[in-house]
Amino acid sequence: MNLLVTGATGFVGQHFVAELIRRRHRVTVLVRSEDRAQEMNWRGDVRIICGDLSLEDSFDWGLIRSPHTLVHLAWPGLSDFRDLAHFEVHAGSAYRFIRRVVDHGCKRVLVAGTCLEYGMREGSMNESMPASPELPYALGKDFLRRSLELLRKTTPFDFLWARLFYMYGNGQNPRSVLSQLDAAINRGESVFNMSGGEQLRDYLPVEDVARYLAVLTETPAHVGIVNICSGNPVSVRRLVEQHIEERQATIRLNLGHYPYPDYEPFAFWGDNRILKSLEKSL
Amino acid sequence: MNLLVTGATGFVGQHFVAELIRRRHRVTVLVRSEDRAQEMNWRGDVRIICGDLSLEDSFDWGLIRSPHTLVHLAWPGLSDFRDLAHFEVHAGSAYRFIRRVVDHGCKRVLVAGTCLEYGMREGSMNESMPASPELPYALGKDFLRRSLELLRKTTPFDFLWARLFYMYGNGQNPRSVLSQLDAAINRGESVFNMSGGEQLRDYLPVEDVARYLAVLTETPAHVGIVNICSGNPVSVRRLVEQHIEERQATIRLNLGHYPYPDYEPFAFWGDNRILKSLEKSL
Repeated sequence: MNLLVTGATGFVGQHFVAELIRRRHRVTVLVRSEDRAQEMNWRGDVRIICGDLSLEDSFDWGLIRSPHTLVHLAWPGLSDFRDLAHFEVHAGSAYRFIRRVVDHGCKRVLVAGTCLEYGMREGSMNESMPASPELPYALGKDFLRRSLELLRKTTPFDFLWARLFYMYGNGQNPRSVLSQLDAAINRGESVFNMSGGEQLRDYLPVEDVARYLAVLTETPAHVGIVNICSGNPVSVRRLVEQHIEERQATIRLNLGHYPYPDYEPFAFWGDNRILKSLEKSL
Repeated sequence: MNLLVTGATGFVGQHFVAELIRRRHRVTVLVRSEDRAQEMNWRGDVRIICGDLSLEDSFDWGLIRSPHTLVHLAWPGLSDFRDLAHFEVHAGSAYRFIRRVVDHGCKRVLVAGTCLEYGMREGSMNESMPASPELPYALGKDFLRRSLELLRKTTPFDFLWARLFYMYGNGQNPRSVLSQLDAAINRGESVFNMSGGEQLRDYLPVEDVARYLAVLTETPAHVGIVNICSGNPVSVRRLVEQHIEERQATIRLNLGHYPYPDYEPFAFWGDNRILKSLEKSL
């Protein structure tokens, strides 16, 4: 299959492109930084276009040709979910870019959404629940999804919305809890300061997320929202303890040092039944 | 009270400004057309600023001063609820304008929403139901409301969202059913072609809508969504028959000539309990 991927050098993207190559797809990536793309181990296996999708004509649109599927993972400003730019700027930029690719003849679009679209609700989230975005980042994503749903009514295309839950692995945000834990271990510290750690989340290794996204990309008929998640709630404390064990490190947890974040529900995880049924059907 | 009103020469706006003048408020209107403003019978009682709010600097922002309350009724393209421009263009324009007025020091904002935000749901709509916009117009309005809710978290202001249901009266859209009925009567026609007429809607005379909006404007503490509606479902057939009676006209209804619109629920009306409690509290 002939795919165009944005966000290819990001945390999920770098693993996702590697997975696509393993599955022998023909991949074009649109990247802002050529240097960053040259750091990727798949650099020789893909076609690279350099450009900024938020700028009208920062690259030659003729190079895009007409991909069978666009996988849009790019999204700026992930270090601050509360920045108003998520809905003031980024959502519109993403929409205009995707619309233009669709106008170029692309018939299938997969976009990365976020579990934060569900809002401040506790428990197991399933795809039929109404979104209730209460963070600027979540509103930007939700508005993009709703906009594309309406665009489809005038310009038909297959549309998959992958709601990503939490993940960990190589390339993760240095501010994430496991990155900070790794840094503390590497510095030889004896104590790791963290929150109470009782909050429940849904985590997947990033390689699994990449594989699930590839499965979605290959599913011929399915259209709609799909949670990308494990289906299993885990406490952040347990996650951290497992990581310490895997690294065979010794570091003491100072639980309760930081307050819990106030912008996320305390205990929520994903219902993965749709994801599992799609995986089986292939 | 010192108010800034947009959409003042529109269907609701012209009645609303008249009501504000009756209630002795000091009113500034921002209008695109000076000529249109000069047709209004309140032209001598308000301060008129000419400009297009969707263009960054089409008027002198110094003239806006710092209104106590902004009442934002303006919205383009109401002749086609399915035009993608509602969410691609108009929502963002409205947001940027309102944000700028708030940045100028305005502490209270009332915006006109629409009952179509509730989506394809039948029955009585109350304000605590989650919005589910399925029309470009409804998505534009819903996104504007959610964006302003998040803006409030960084720049506090009182925020009222008036969900307008259906209305009739002087100045209404010439494509509305009662306008077309009037035109047919005025042309002396013997038959009026319409839909089956069994669909249930919630209608108010536009003067009542204007008065309710003035009540909201004056309610000191309330913040949130308020349905502007009668609370009483009425069939379109009954509405048309009543209008024929009031005009003492004789014209036969050709029911079922047109199909029912597919973009609206068949039977929905508003819960007006919040509106009524606010009216009583004044």
